[in-house]
Amino acid sequence: MTASPPRILCLGSSTLDTILKLDALPQGPGKLLPSDMVRAAHGMAGSAAATIARLGGKAGLISRVGEDADADLIVGDFETAGVDCSRVERIAGARSTLSTVLVGRAGERVVLPYYDPGLWAPEPRFGAEVVEGQDAVLVDVRWPEGAARLLAAARAAGIPAVLDGDTGPQEVHERLLPLSTHAVFSDEGALGFTGENDPARALERIAARHDGFVSVTVGPDGCLWWDREAGAVRHLPALRVEAIDTLAAGDVFHGAFVLLLAEGRDIETCIRFANAAAAMKCRVFGGRKGTPTRAEVEAFLSAD
Amino acid sequence: MTASPPRILCLGSSTLDTILKLDALPQGPGKLLPSDMVRAAHGMAGSAAATIARLGGKAGLISRVGEDADADLIVGDFETAGVDCSRVERIAGARSTLSTVLVGRAGERVVLPYYDPGLWAPEPRFGAEVVEGQDAVLVDVRWPEGAARLLAAARAAGIPAVLDGDTGPQEVHERLLPLSTHAVFSDEGALGFTGENDPARALERIAARHDGFVSVTVGPDGCLWWDREAGAVRHLPALRVEAIDTLAAGDVFHGAFVLLLAEGRDIETCIRFANAAAAMKCRVFGGRKGTPTRAEVEAFLSAD
Repeated sequence: MTASPPRILCLGSSTLDTILKLDALPQGPGKLLPSDMVRAAHGMAGSAAATIARLGGKAGLISRVGEDADADLIVGDFETAGVDCSRVERIAGARSTLSTVLVGRAGERVVLPYYDPGLWAPEPRFGAEVVEGQDAVLVDVRWPEGAARLLAAARAAGIPAVLDGDTGPQEVHERLLPLSTHAVFSDEGALGFTGENDPARALERIAARHDGFVSVTVGPDGCLWWDREAGAVRHLPALRVEAIDTLAAGDVFHGAFVLLLAEGRDIETCIRFANAAAAMKCRVFGGRKGTPTRAEVEAFLSAD
Repeated sequence: MTASPPRILCLGSSTLDTILKLDALPQGPGKLLPSDMVRAAHGMAGSAAATIARLGGKAGLISRVGEDADADLIVGDFETAGVDCSRVERIAGARSTLSTVLVGRAGERVVLPYYDPGLWAPEPRFGAEVVEGQDAVLVDVRWPEGAARLLAAARAAGIPAVLDGDTGPQEVHERLLPLSTHAVFSDEGALGFTGENDPARALERIAARHDGFVSVTVGPDGCLWWDREAGAVRHLPALRVEAIDTLAAGDVFHGAFVLLLAEGRDIETCIRFANAAAAMKCRVFGGRKGTPTRAEVEAFLSAD
């Protein structure tokens, strides 16, 4: 465990989300009046970085925004959350990513992100030196060039290099997986990558081709992980909560997981903590707005 | 007909719309990747005002926005469209209206506007003197206090006072209808107001209680209007187009209609022109982005 709060770099997507609370998801054409709205910066890497900051770590974000007013809102919101955004790259002529999220009564959601194809095209501006003084890195699959560069630098520096495996092109996962020390897939991501229809089978398939740590989050059911010593799938169930909004639950899991990993905790402690933080987040409307503090997670875990 | 371009004040809703183009509207929870996105200022009164400016009139907007970055985007976009926004009221502590629109392959749409309840609460800041030098006014039903004040001022000044009757509370329509000289309802608005399920029957019901001009737009079928002399419903069909996006078609109709009305044209000419402008708008993705110029509408009508 490090004496001071761990320093973690998160790389990938940052978005401006408009989150609309509805009685029911749309069933066809018409006009629906949302009962509530939250607008806040999200994105997989961005929400994970905000989670790390909320839980007491030192988080930095490497991401891309356009040169527009939304960029200021995204960067401003993450900075308010305590995330160092000095390495967020502003891309001339590109549009910041806007994502619309419709949340139904039971927390079920439709996510509609619009990515400008020009956003990820230019070469990354950062070099391997960004990992100096860092304790871990986390990357998502939206910016493959940046992710490959950061994972390689982290491995060379001997710090945890965590991959958030999610819905996205198979070749991107094939490229990034061997560069990671830890791969944490969403269930959708693991099924899409392997072509399996069962998360446990998908986990076995991924574990067979990667010698690092491998796990698959399974929403309200918690997390599956591969116990390499025992050669078996292990399951840590999530604590049950009344879900109001599941947006960013996976990103909160990733942020909490990598924070405890950077502190040197054993893997089961990392997963239990991440399971709890992600479940607690779902009790409040507004995406990552529901992310608990460290004290709240620890109280929740000790009450269990 | 006035010698110089007519001056028209539009009062009511102004929104920042995020319009997402989808292969299909959502069928349930999940992630959908839009193939295109347009963000632009809309709202019923705002889109009508922009239409008037595009068609060569002098349009002013009386509306409300919050004190936020979205307010600047809304006002800036309407000013770029040539609309005088000097009477748009910025309301401290309120949020500008954001609307999300999902457009399917055949132009069908889900509209999700979020109105801050605090936006319309304060008393209108403008007085009856705003109609001096104006040739007509148009109001929607989103800001009843403002609409009642502007309609009354317009009637007192002897200029056309047009009501855009739309989905909204019945008591608001009951209050505004007698203040108008011309009421142009959407079919949804007319059915909701009267409880009828047929637009022609709804039109008869509205005409029986209001001695001004009354009409109901019926989407791709054009417009029904009440011929008071003949005591009969009349129908002017719309010109057929391949619809890509129907967002704001009704607002374009209203703007075009009131412009020709202010020019002193006869009612059938007003409706034919508005029918054509609204239909042409639907051929382009991006809401009011597809609004034609006056020359384009006239070419379209003469080619028919």
